[in-house]
Amino acid sequence: MWVTPPKNAIGRLSVAKNELFAMLGALLLFGMPFFETTATDTATHARTGRITTDHGTIETPVFMPVGTQASVKTLDQADMRQLGAEIMLGNTYHLHLRPGEDLIAEHGGLHRFMNWDKPLLTDSGGFQVFSLGKETRAGAELGAGAQGRLVAIDEQGVTFTSHIDGSTHRFTPESSIDIQHKLGADIIMAFDECTPDAAERPYAEAALARTHAWAEQSLAAHMGNTRYHGYQQFLFGIIQGAQHRDLRERSAEFISALPFDGVAIGGESIGYNMAATAEILDWVYPYLPETKPHYAMGVGLSPLDLLIAVEHGVDMFDCVAPTRLARHGMLYSKNPSKQHRLNIKNASFARDTQPIDAACACHTCQNYSRSYLHHLFAAGELSGQRLASLHNLHFLLQLMRDTRQAIGAGRFKEFKKEWE
Amino acid sequence: MWVTPPKNAIGRLSVAKNELFAMLGALLLFGMPFFETTATDTATHARTGRITTDHGTIETPVFMPVGTQASVKTLDQADMRQLGAEIMLGNTYHLHLRPGEDLIAEHGGLHRFMNWDKPLLTDSGGFQVFSLGKETRAGAELGAGAQGRLVAIDEQGVTFTSHIDGSTHRFTPESSIDIQHKLGADIIMAFDECTPDAAERPYAEAALARTHAWAEQSLAAHMGNTRYHGYQQFLFGIIQGAQHRDLRERSAEFISALPFDGVAIGGESIGYNMAATAEILDWVYPYLPETKPHYAMGVGLSPLDLLIAVEHGVDMFDCVAPTRLARHGMLYSKNPSKQHRLNIKNASFARDTQPIDAACACHTCQNYSRSYLHHLFAAGELSGQRLASLHNLHFLLQLMRDTRQAIGAGRFKEFKKEWE
Repeated sequence: MWVTPPKNAIGRLSVAKNELFAMLGALLLFGMPFFETTATDTATHARTGRITTDHGTIETPVFMPVGTQASVKTLDQADMRQLGAEIMLGNTYHLHLRPGEDLIAEHGGLHRFMNWDKPLLTDSGGFQVFSLGKETRAGAELGAGAQGRLVAIDEQGVTFTSHIDGSTHRFTPESSIDIQHKLGADIIMAFDECTPDAAERPYAEAALARTHAWAEQSLAAHMGNTRYHGYQQFLFGIIQGAQHRDLRERSAEFISALPFDGVAIGGESIGYNMAATAEILDWVYPYLPETKPHYAMGVGLSPLDLLIAVEHGVDMFDCVAPTRLARHGMLYSKNPSKQHRLNIKNASFARDTQPIDAACACHTCQNYSRSYLHHLFAAGELSGQRLASLHNLHFLLQLMRDTRQAIGAGRFKEFKKEWE
Repeated sequence: MWVTPPKNAIGRLSVAKNELFAMLGALLLFGMPFFETTATDTATHARTGRITTDHGTIETPVFMPVGTQASVKTLDQADMRQLGAEIMLGNTYHLHLRPGEDLIAEHGGLHRFMNWDKPLLTDSGGFQVFSLGKETRAGAELGAGAQGRLVAIDEQGVTFTSHIDGSTHRFTPESSIDIQHKLGADIIMAFDECTPDAAERPYAEAALARTHAWAEQSLAAHMGNTRYHGYQQFLFGIIQGAQHRDLRERSAEFISALPFDGVAIGGESIGYNMAATAEILDWVYPYLPETKPHYAMGVGLSPLDLLIAVEHGVDMFDCVAPTRLARHGMLYSKNPSKQHRLNIKNASFARDTQPIDAACACHTCQNYSRSYLHHLFAAGELSGQRLASLHNLHFLLQLMRDTRQAIGAGRFKEFKKEWE
């Protein structure tokens, strides 16, 4: 429910502006397909494309900055606009626990709550439930003596305790979709079980069966209500199967056949173990629908990781690493021998008047020296964390702009070589 | 020493720009007095004026944001430009300890180091030495068993230990001025002893004698070298005398008679105890030179405090409170019954779609609701601290713009009443 606030209130201006944009967007984009391919590389699976939502278009391949709690850490949405970000992520697990989907729905959804009128994507909450969980075991019960974060999985869903206050919560495919409807992201995700890499075959099989059942239930829950806030929400399915080739193939085939708007590849190792990620992407690629966007969940630890995913036909990725690394002083700078990274805290930068990266056009590189940034980190100034976050995000967003250009110009392979 | 950096380096661009500005500034401002009064209030001592430096002009009364370690906490210099700040402070004590004045001088001074081409002011280091010191006692020795932060005062200067690593340092009038020359702020301060409020008369007398001797020594040290980096640096003297009326009067008379470019009022209580501050300002006012700017060091905890200082003929103030309060969620909003302050962490703001202050034109109020800010603080997001800092600084800078207008229009008293 949106209550018209009094004159001068932020809400009023923001509603008017958002509604105008949404209306204009809907008019302009009417009849546009959700996804279309604009160029394909002949030597690899790399491609460029365009995703069209009621909040605007997204050029792919796209790196999506993560605003876990409705904020990309240290930055605000004006920063994101200046960086040229076309889509941001929010995390359903975190937003459900705080401030809660009902409060956000009262604002008219996440776009208005955080004042971001471009596309948003929310995950299903599954990844955080499992990765923040202390124990992941099917059939377990939340005992009275359980210390926070215990996770109990059953065939209908997952019961877990909040990392904030230890309170008990439960996600099912239906509740995850309901929460994501209220949050109102343009792209939402099916509820899945993120299986650990180490999962033995019997467990991995059972988990995959649950993920597939939940995929169908998520679809059913979404189909009846695809426009909770008035604009279209698109639902993606998620391929699981841990590190078992046949399970990954079975999952890719199953998820690709369902009427999802896009297909994601999930799992504990995706993005964190690029050798395993590349292998899994190889396995699933033949089953991925060409006409739908492909999303590798969690890829983006290093610039080269993005290019590896692109090479495997991936259109979308997200990762918290670029901003987390930034807050620890690890800054991207093109240098294959050093993983395109430097540690600004190193004493060698104390008197260095160069920018972080000589070719970078970001606000930080245009205005501040390594020496000044070294000082801000040495002195524990939060402004250093912000300037570093701006740089790392710009670096990946610019890499994606260059990647799209390289694909369009038919020279993706050569382009990728520069980063190897 | 400035070493010309290679092509594409930040240093080169920044040098060129800064030098161009300095040259243009020097041309335009040639022959302008350092300070001129532009309007005076008839009912109070309030006045407007203009300070002219080689890095630009400052309209007074002016609130000066504090960038202790060459950064206003959570913000960068682009933020400060957007806020319309005309001058920033740096702290000599902190910058001496880290990164050191020699490193900053290698950059060509603080302006270039932090990329801020408008005026800067540094304090003398005295306040921090004393306020961060564990013990303040004349004649004390730094014993072997001294636990960090011990301060030993003698007639020639102060020996103290670093709050960072416990290393021993010494400030004298000469070394403080030398450090401030290397830092290169447009306005620098004489070295003084910031006497505690509780100082008994014999101690206060002896401390004042030291402050006055150090004022003359600071002047002598400065006179031989007023253009260390090529542009003019202006030196202010500081009135002390604790809470003793005759000592304050004696100090005001003594400092005002010396050829300083401006006169400051210092002391432990200034800004932190506004009743004491107003009384001290009353005592010293008759002795202050009309033709020089008056600077109350540390005033700015609340909007009304600024107006009280202005009423007493003060032209300049600084305070870390606005940004410190902001980082703790205490936000300025015009409301005399609540000290113009609200605590955004209060549960009452969780669903409040209004901006912090309905009349505020700052980035934060134009873009985000109390509800969103409440969420950012509840979730511990650093972006909340930054948005809050932007608001609090804008609020005081706007208050100063409005104050100058009110003085010019001859309605300062009525204007101040609105805030009482």
